Amino acid sequence: MSAAGVITLLTDFGTRDHYVGVMKGVIASLNPEAVLIDLTHEVPAQAVRSAGYVLDASFRFFAPGTVHLAIVDPGVGSDRKAMVLRAAGHLFVVPDNGLVTEVMRAEHEWKAAEITNPVLLLPSISQTFHGRDVFAPAAARLSAGFPFDEVGPIISTPHTLPPLLPEKKAGVLRGEVIWIDGFGNLITTVREEDLRWLAPTADWGTLTIEIARTSVRGLRPTYNQGTGLMALVGSSGRLEISVVGGSAQEVLATKLGDQVIVHA
Amino acid sequence: MSAAGVITLLTDFGTRDHYVGVMKGVIASLNPEAVLIDLTHEVPAQAVRSAGYVLDASFRFFAPGTVHLAIVDPGVGSDRKAMVLRAAGHLFVVPDNGLVTEVMRAEHEWKAAEITNPVLLLPSISQTFHGRDVFAPAAARLSAGFPFDEVGPIISTPHTLPPLLPEKKAGVLRGEVIWIDGFGNLITTVREEDLRWLAPTADWGTLTIEIARTSVRGLRPTYNQGTGLMALVGSSGRLEISVVGGSAQEVLATKLGDQVIVHA
Amino acid sequence: MSAAGVITLLTDFGTRDHYVGVMKGVIASLNPEAVLIDLTHEVPAQAVRSAGYVLDASFRFFAPGTVHLAIVDPGVGSDRKAMVLRAAGHLFVVPDNGLVTEVMRAEHEWKAAEITNPVLLLPSISQTFHGRDVFAPAAARLSAGFPFDEVGPIISTPHTLPPLLPEKKAGVLRGEVIWIDGFGNLITTVREEDLRWLAPTADWGTLTIEIARTSVRGLRPTYNQGTGLMALVGSSGRLEISVVGGSAQEVLATKLGDQVIVHA
Repeated sequence: MSAAGVITLLTDFGTRDHYVGVMKGVIASLNPEAVLIDLTHEVPAQAVRSAGYVLDASFRFFAPGTVHLAIVDPGVGSDRKAMVLRAAGHLFVVPDNGLVTEVMRAEHEWKAAEITNPVLLLPSISQTFHGRDVFAPAAARLSAGFPFDEVGPIISTPHTLPPLLPEKKAGVLRGEVIWIDGFGNLITTVREEDLRWLAPTADWGTLTIEIARTSVRGLRPTYNQGTGLMALVGSSGRLEISVVGGSAQEVLATKLGDQVIVHA
Repeated sequence: MSAAGVITLLTDFGTRDHYVGVMKGVIASLNPEAVLIDLTHEVPAQAVRSAGYVLDASFRFFAPGTVHLAIVDPGVGSDRKAMVLRAAGHLFVVPDNGLVTEVMRAEHEWKAAEITNPVLLLPSISQTFHGRDVFAPAAARLSAGFPFDEVGPIISTPHTLPPLLPEKKAGVLRGEVIWIDGFGNLITTVREEDLRWLAPTADWGTLTIEIARTSVRGLRPTYNQGTGLMALVGSSGRLEISVVGGSAQEVLATKLGDQVIVHA
Repeated sequence: MSAAGVITLLTDFGTRDHYVGVMKGVIASLNPEAVLIDLTHEVPAQAVRSAGYVLDASFRFFAPGTVHLAIVDPGVGSDRKAMVLRAAGHLFVVPDNGLVTEVMRAEHEWKAAEITNPVLLLPSISQTFHGRDVFAPAAARLSAGFPFDEVGPIISTPHTLPPLLPEKKAGVLRGEVIWIDGFGNLITTVREEDLRWLAPTADWGTLTIEIARTSVRGLRPTYNQGTGLMALVGSSGRLEISVVGGSAQEVLATKLGDQVIVHA
């Protein structure tokens, strides 16, 4: 990994405050050549699993060697650990709260360590802003070549959350809404491969998708085809519910975690 | 063009999702030295002409050699082409849907090509996210020196939209609101040179501007002079309607496309 | 200072428009190696003192040599001066309107100059967008090594605003809300050292904080401890009012400038 490594940032901090900018200042001070790329800072407050979806849908589009700094951290100030996960040649600098559950599940080879080496920390650590005092300096040092093996003690069983998968039973998929995008599209835990388990691709035109007491029949290839409510496999390989020229979130009054059921 | 070229990004994707971040990941993977600058991602959904205004008002402040990646693309998944326009020493990577109409009109020498060379594309192209799979990799390669002549077949007549100009007839200018900024200022298609066609600068104090059944008399030199509703030539050389200490959009309940009329 | 210097950006322009992107284009044209980091562009419109809080809470996390471009400028088009302040090894490129009051108060050694050298300006200066035409090119040149001594005439007494300090009288601190963050936390002008003046740290558990006709008793070490309304010293070393799992701004219907009183 060269010193000019890319660091992505993913938080629920928003961009109204200087919090993200200050983290970038800490990084730039320690590794002036780091290239900083925001994934988003608009994760719904403390929605750790949704942040895990974003990370999983994003990190493969970055080159190996990228450092992903992801902080959605209801446990700041508690005893949850700060962690580095190495997987698929990427490094994830995260609270040990299940944020990287999906990365660990998808990649069989991974290794995690607790951030304890003082070289990775700011000299003084607040109780309220570990993003600035712990995660940012750790990400900066790692992107500049600091060796993973010196991060700290191995964490053999990081904290995990329920995986982003549907329940498969008796020809039915039961999933949930895991992300709602800026266009109002509802992205679900149902993956393209789950649909293939349910029915051959040729038969997807007759699948029934139930959400918010409404039924959608069949999948379409892309957005803005036909009219009204529709379903498709979106760009992250997951089933999405969309409304042509409108917002599925508004039309269905849906929220994160709402159930979606797919029948053959 | 050096490999460290600047790439600007302009979309209607918003920043709540990871879509823009993922495009940047694709770019950084292919050209780690690219410098990425966001113009805005808050273009009103699918407002192609408004995006064209933003691009036209911005690109001249970047150095020649800059690559402008602009995606407002109601036609994703349809057969609209992906295009590179070369004009004024800049490269524009856009859907062929009229987004660069204004650039083409202002610059007499331009050349356009369809993006078909597979070197410019990701190996697998989704039907829903050409920003990631087509436009981002093309912009990255171009910024790293990929020759324009190898992009693909020439497009001799790119799609165009109505130009951002007022109608001039019998001493009257008829224009429209093309952008509403974050302060609520209404930016119109009426340019400084159109006002000069209408009346000598010395007489602008007596021009009458009609918008939303309201009249404004005369132009002022800058914002926040006097009180109430006012008109001025803004920083992009276009007539703007503004409210001192308030929002013209709210006061006039105006929306994109609303008519503005100027009399001498 | 190397040409690859960091430039931070702080404005009230928002990110819906291309204004910030155009400033970055001007900077990148003049110093292609500058590293651009946004602090925030969501300062409440024309809230100069609040912008000063953000700058003061942020700049120390950047390396010396950083150029801070901060524009909250109700006086654009008036005769307020454009200024560079040098303090603590940092450079601040700002309107002379009190935005750097807090930096000047905290750092005893500073020097300020009016931006008049034409090398620092775009060839043509609009009356409405000095960010693009004055402040951005000045910041770019300074980050590329342009000497402070050639900026322009010394400003010996820059404009100042009331400092971000509470009134201390008879065992009582009277401060105000200076920033409301995206989580709804209310950040006040009362600093950790003011609390120490009032009472030894060991006694902070019995302090009384009054705000919006409500009383909070004692300080807690971090967010999300216990329930309801709480007070703590936040990451910028200032007293904050917070609501566990909610927004103090909403619960208390507070706005910028509201009073906060602390008793031992």
